[in-house]
Amino acid sequence: MEAEFIHWLRDRLPSHPQLLLGPGDDAAVLRLTRQDGCVVTSDLLNDGVDFRLEQCDPRLIGRKALAVNLSDLAAMAARPVAALVSLLLPRTGALSLAQQLFEGLLPLAEEFHIAIAGGDTNTWDGRLVICLTAIGEVTGSGPLRRAGALPGDEILVTGHFGGSLLGKHLQFTPRVQEALKLHAQYQLHAGTDVSDGLSLDLWNIVSDSGCGALLDLAAIPIDAAACRLAADEGGGRSPLDHALGDGEDFELILAASPEEARRMLQDQPLGTPLTRIETFIAEPGLWTRSVTGLLQRIEPRGWRH
Amino acid sequence: MEAEFIHWLRDRLPSHPQLLLGPGDDAAVLRLTRQDGCVVTSDLLNDGVDFRLEQCDPRLIGRKALAVNLSDLAAMAARPVAALVSLLLPRTGALSLAQQLFEGLLPLAEEFHIAIAGGDTNTWDGRLVICLTAIGEVTGSGPLRRAGALPGDEILVTGHFGGSLLGKHLQFTPRVQEALKLHAQYQLHAGTDVSDGLSLDLWNIVSDSGCGALLDLAAIPIDAAACRLAADEGGGRSPLDHALGDGEDFELILAASPEEARRMLQDQPLGTPLTRIETFIAEPGLWTRSVTGLLQRIEPRGWRH
Repeated sequence: MEAEFIHWLRDRLPSHPQLLLGPGDDAAVLRLTRQDGCVVTSDLLNDGVDFRLEQCDPRLIGRKALAVNLSDLAAMAARPVAALVSLLLPRTGALSLAQQLFEGLLPLAEEFHIAIAGGDTNTWDGRLVICLTAIGEVTGSGPLRRAGALPGDEILVTGHFGGSLLGKHLQFTPRVQEALKLHAQYQLHAGTDVSDGLSLDLWNIVSDSGCGALLDLAAIPIDAAACRLAADEGGGRSPLDHALGDGEDFELILAASPEEARRMLQDQPLGTPLTRIETFIAEPGLWTRSVTGLLQRIEPRGWRH
Repeated sequence: MEAEFIHWLRDRLPSHPQLLLGPGDDAAVLRLTRQDGCVVTSDLLNDGVDFRLEQCDPRLIGRKALAVNLSDLAAMAARPVAALVSLLLPRTGALSLAQQLFEGLLPLAEEFHIAIAGGDTNTWDGRLVICLTAIGEVTGSGPLRRAGALPGDEILVTGHFGGSLLGKHLQFTPRVQEALKLHAQYQLHAGTDVSDGLSLDLWNIVSDSGCGALLDLAAIPIDAAACRLAADEGGGRSPLDHALGDGEDFELILAASPEEARRMLQDQPLGTPLTRIETFIAEPGLWTRSVTGLLQRIEPRGWRH
C-alpha cells in the first residue's frame, strides 16, 4: 500500500524552491536561507484523543495535523519551510484514508508555501495516528521565545478564545502570517500560541520569564462559540471559563513594552483584532483584581497532557 | 504525565553546541553549519509490526527508533545533528515506559553527538507508537543519492546480510561513520541502506539510477544469523534467501567506478568488511549468471510496506 500511496503522492506534490531532494530517496534535502535558526517541532495526533475518526471528515484531520505544527512555528515567529508526515493507518481502507488526509493537508501546505519533504506510511490493526514534524527558519528578528516577558510589559492576544471544540479546533488558520508581521514590525519580548488553554499557556510564559501576569478578565475576548458551549451545557461553566481553559484556540499571546503595545493596538495591523488583557507583573503566578482592588490568584486551567 | 516526563528528560539531556534552544519552548532552534543541505527523515515504529513490546526490553526499542533514522542519514552520507522523538504510550505505566525508551535511545544519541531537540509525548488506550524525525546536514561531498549508479560501476556492500530478526534488528549500529568516511575519501556514485532487504534496496538503486544490477550470489556476505535462521526453519529458505530478502540489516549498498572500488576494496578502510557483489549493468532489473553463463532474472524480495 505504501508504494501505491507514494506514487499517488509524488504526482500531487508541487516542486518547492527549498526542497533540493524530495520524497523517494532515503531522506530529503532542504536548502535553508540561514544557518543560525532552523526551527523544528513535532506533534502527534491520535484517533480518540485529538479527533474522532468516525465523526470527522479525514481531510479536516489531515489539515489539523499540519495546522497545529504551523501554529508552533508561528509561536516562534518562524517562517515555515517543510513538513514530514508520518501515518499509521488502520489496515482497512488505508490507501483511501491516507489520500483523504493529504487532500486536507496539501491545500494548507500550499497556502503557507511549505514543502512536503517526506515521512513514513504504515498500516496496522490499531487506530489512526498522525505524527507531523514541521521545519521552519527564524527571520532577521530571531526566534520569539516564551522567556522574555518583563514586569510592566503588556499582555496582548490575537483573536478570540473558548469553545474551539465546536469547530475551530479543526478549521483554524495558524497565526503564521500574523506572527511574522508583528515580529518584523514591532519589538516583541515573548510569545506563544494557545494550544492547551489561554490561562495555561500564559502560565507557561510567566514561568519561563520568571514573572507573573495580572489579567483583566473583562477584557478577555470571548469567542461566540464559548457562549454557545456554555449555554448548551446549561450552567456548569461560564463563557469566560471556556475562554480561559478550553485550549485549541491557536491564537497568539504576546508580551511587549507599554509603548510598543500602544502602537500595536492603535495600528491594529492584522486582519484579526489585537487585544490587551492587562499586564505582566513581578509577582509570580496569574492574578486578577477583585472588585475591592485586591489581587486574587487564578489557577491556570487547560489541557494537561 | 507529560510534564513529569519532560522534567525528568530535561535533567538528562546534555547541552549540544548546535542546539540553540532546546525542548521546553514551542519549538527548538538548531544551528546548522551549511545552508544548502539540511537532511531530514522520519520513521514511525509501532508495537506489533516493528517490535513486540511484551517480548522486548523497551530500551532496545527506543534505541532502534533512533538507529533506523540514523541509518537513513547514513544512507545519504549526512552528518546527524538532532532528533525529535514523539511517543504515543499505553496509559498504564506510561511514565516508566517513556523513561526506559529514552534510557535506550540517549546513549546512541550521545554516541553520534546528536541533540534531542524535542518531540511530543501522549498517552492513549492503544499500543505503543514511536515516531522519530532525524535531522542532519550534508558534508562537502554533498548528499549520497540512490540515483547515480552507472553501468560498469561496482556494487559494494558493508557487513553481512540476513537473519537480523535473531537480534541485529534491535542492536545494530547505524553505518553513519562508515558512510561519512567513505564519502569523504572516495568518489561514490550512489548509495542506500538496507532496511527492507538487500535485493529490494538494490532494486531501489537501479530503479532510481535507470540501470540494472548483475549479482554474484556466491559473493554475497551472509550473516551467521541467516544460517542459524535457515537451519532453525529446517528447510524452506536458504541462508542466501535470508540474505537477499530479510531486511533490517542496516548495512550500506554503494556504487563506485571500478578504479575507485578497487581502491576501496584494497584499503578496507572500515572496521567492517567491504565486499564487491558484482556490477551495475545497462539492462534494467536484477540479474545473476546461471552455471551456463546466461543472465537469469532475480525478483527483488523483502519487506514491502
